[in-house]
Amino acid sequence: MNSKLPHLETTIFTVMSKLANQHQAINLAQGFPDFDPHSSLIESLNYYSYQNYNQYAPMIGVEKLRNFISEKTERFHHTIYHPEQEITITNGASQAIFTAIAAVIEKGDEVIIFEPAYDLYKPAVEMFGGIVKPIQLTYPDYNIDYESLKSKVTSQTKLIIFNNPNNPSGKIFKAEDLVQIEAILKDKNCYIISDEVYEHMTFDAYEHQSFARIPSLKDRTFITASFGKLCHVTGWKVGYVLAGKELMNEFRKVHQYNVFSVHTPSQYAIADYLDDENNYLELNNFFQEKRDYFTKGLSSTKFELIPAEGTYFVSASFKNYSELSDREFAKKLTIENKVATIPFSAFYHDTFDEKVIRFCFAKQKETLDSALEKLNKL
Amino acid sequence: MNSKLPHLETTIFTVMSKLANQHQAINLAQGFPDFDPHSSLIESLNYYSYQNYNQYAPMIGVEKLRNFISEKTERFHHTIYHPEQEITITNGASQAIFTAIAAVIEKGDEVIIFEPAYDLYKPAVEMFGGIVKPIQLTYPDYNIDYESLKSKVTSQTKLIIFNNPNNPSGKIFKAEDLVQIEAILKDKNCYIISDEVYEHMTFDAYEHQSFARIPSLKDRTFITASFGKLCHVTGWKVGYVLAGKELMNEFRKVHQYNVFSVHTPSQYAIADYLDDENNYLELNNFFQEKRDYFTKGLSSTKFELIPAEGTYFVSASFKNYSELSDREFAKKLTIENKVATIPFSAFYHDTFDEKVIRFCFAKQKETLDSALEKLNKL
Ligand SMILES: CSCCC(=O)C(=O)O
Ligand SMILES: CSCCC(=O)C(=O)O
Repeated sequence: MNSKLPHLETTIFTVMSKLANQHQAINLAQGFPDFDPHSSLIESLNYYSYQNYNQYAPMIGVEKLRNFISEKTERFHHTIYHPEQEITITNGASQAIFTAIAAVIEKGDEVIIFEPAYDLYKPAVEMFGGIVKPIQLTYPDYNIDYESLKSKVTSQTKLIIFNNPNNPSGKIFKAEDLVQIEAILKDKNCYIISDEVYEHMTFDAYEHQSFARIPSLKDRTFITASFGKLCHVTGWKVGYVLAGKELMNEFRKVHQYNVFSVHTPSQYAIADYLDDENNYLELNNFFQEKRDYFTKGLSSTKFELIPAEGTYFVSASFKNYSELSDREFAKKLTIENKVATIPFSAFYHDTFDEKVIRFCFAKQKETLDSALEKLNKL
Repeated sequence: MNSKLPHLETTIFTVMSKLANQHQAINLAQGFPDFDPHSSLIESLNYYSYQNYNQYAPMIGVEKLRNFISEKTERFHHTIYHPEQEITITNGASQAIFTAIAAVIEKGDEVIIFEPAYDLYKPAVEMFGGIVKPIQLTYPDYNIDYESLKSKVTSQTKLIIFNNPNNPSGKIFKAEDLVQIEAILKDKNCYIISDEVYEHMTFDAYEHQSFARIPSLKDRTFITASFGKLCHVTGWKVGYVLAGKELMNEFRKVHQYNVFSVHTPSQYAIADYLDDENNYLELNNFFQEKRDYFTKGLSSTKFELIPAEGTYFVSASFKNYSELSDREFAKKLTIENKVATIPFSAFYHDTFDEKVIRFCFAKQKETLDSALEKLNKL
């Protein structure tokens, strides 16, 4: 068989979760909570499925949920996205990002990606004939060099993919970063995908800086986000995308033939659940406590932690333990020490290896305790 | 804005459902049941969501559901698909078809489609640079001319998309049809997508002829199907794809970055529900009764019906009523007579218009009665 995509491999999340299962390791690799969502969310799912909200949702998503998103975006970012024309519910943030790429990328288009980058960006771009131009951000502070960005944005640049709060580094880009990006893109013609799935997981004094705060770029920006992350139900696969009206029209041309629509009772249940704003406003504190608990538990180890300003990941250099490649170290840690993590090189296009691994701390106390016990014995 | 897909319009299903809602018309357009699924299915969804099966499912789908599909395929079609390597759960049949196309189609590839064809095939093929070579099947018998097929299969042909039982014609292609196709493709190099979402809705003495019955083509065939249709939950968006191991590997390369995974508790619920085989074996009779009831109710009208051998659609020529185009007639019928249908030209690439519209009869008796009352007054 002549493969169309000969170089593509299985995503690191599937690889590490499978390895974790095989070796009965604690899975701090793939990013998902191991605790129950609020029971009111489940009750609401049940309510709507019993009321027979079980047939196709509208292609653009359930109205109540789109209205909620519009109000939330206005409240937090002071920009109005029209619920009928500028918001679409997606089968998770992945499908939002994949579909946005499909809607704009053609053969030969250049796409700028900041690395470390979530592992779907590059293959998705390449599937549509795009050429990835990576900008490497590096351990330990992952700052963007704006001179380098400026020099990489050319007339061939069709798209920039930005991710804030950043997975896997845990970094939150600041208002000044958005101002810099805005200035560089002002007289250019490229689109932006701003992946903001960890928007409500920001710690200490850090505030989420949404691209929705840059109205001058609204017409060319897709903002993608995830209710799976927001409501502790990553398996429900509900996310959304915001974009200016014309751009959203292009998005929906693909969306309608890709998935057509999204799980109906889940959309209603999430809309009801988020009516109570505490259900998402509490997330910052909730996850900050987990971060503090986990990082404190690692303080007596020889891991050198990268500060986690947001997301539900904390990453660490393991160079005081081993000279193995990060993939080999992560494998060994899973098989021998029974703790699964994600090696950072999976987020760089050329397996650039800084001896860093990523831990997911969105776990119940017992899970973190068992993992910490093992990690403290390294 | 420079659109990548300037010619794409909103799918006919969204257009007609929206029009039906605006004008409070009975929606016999988009294909979905308006009755409740079995309560045991809903109970099972609730059970699994309360048991916290709410995080990411495996990328390839939940094991129990894949095992069920493998056993069912073996039982009905005497071919073994390996649950781990040759079966993937998808976000509905649409995403299965879209992803299969994405996995194999490159710029310039020719794709043969039998028209009338489900409205996603052509735009999805063109999104990946493919060139559609339509074969028109025509009113009233929609037979395939195999000489014409033979002459259209060239060395440029990368893919053939087949749909059996056929939506919208209601036709079931016979064992001889599959034999003919097998003979024509034997020494060619092309892939096949066999869209079999109505596999368990076949009437009278007609039997579903799955492409799984053609083992000689297994390595190059994707078979796609839908649990939404099978379980009366089109809004749950769960479907699946079967393919030979190597081909499935190509499929999953795209799938993992498109949607990654599918609604977790729904997969478990469906697997439990289908443990009781009556829950799907009863469908043939259940829908045959609806077909008979609806077509009998139309017998005193001037519609000329196309025999529905399978699917949950019956189609009819309206030429005794009007000389309008089918789109105009369908619009008028929705607005003035309050019955929404799908105009057949939406399933032909060049709006070829045979004055035929499609009715969905997957509705409760009351809905069919109201529609029949209106249609009998035309
Ligand atoms: C789709 S599985 C990956 C989940 C995730 O967001 C992560 O681990 O980074
Ligand atoms: C995805 S909406 C269309 C549903 C359907 O299968 C049809 O009406 O043909």
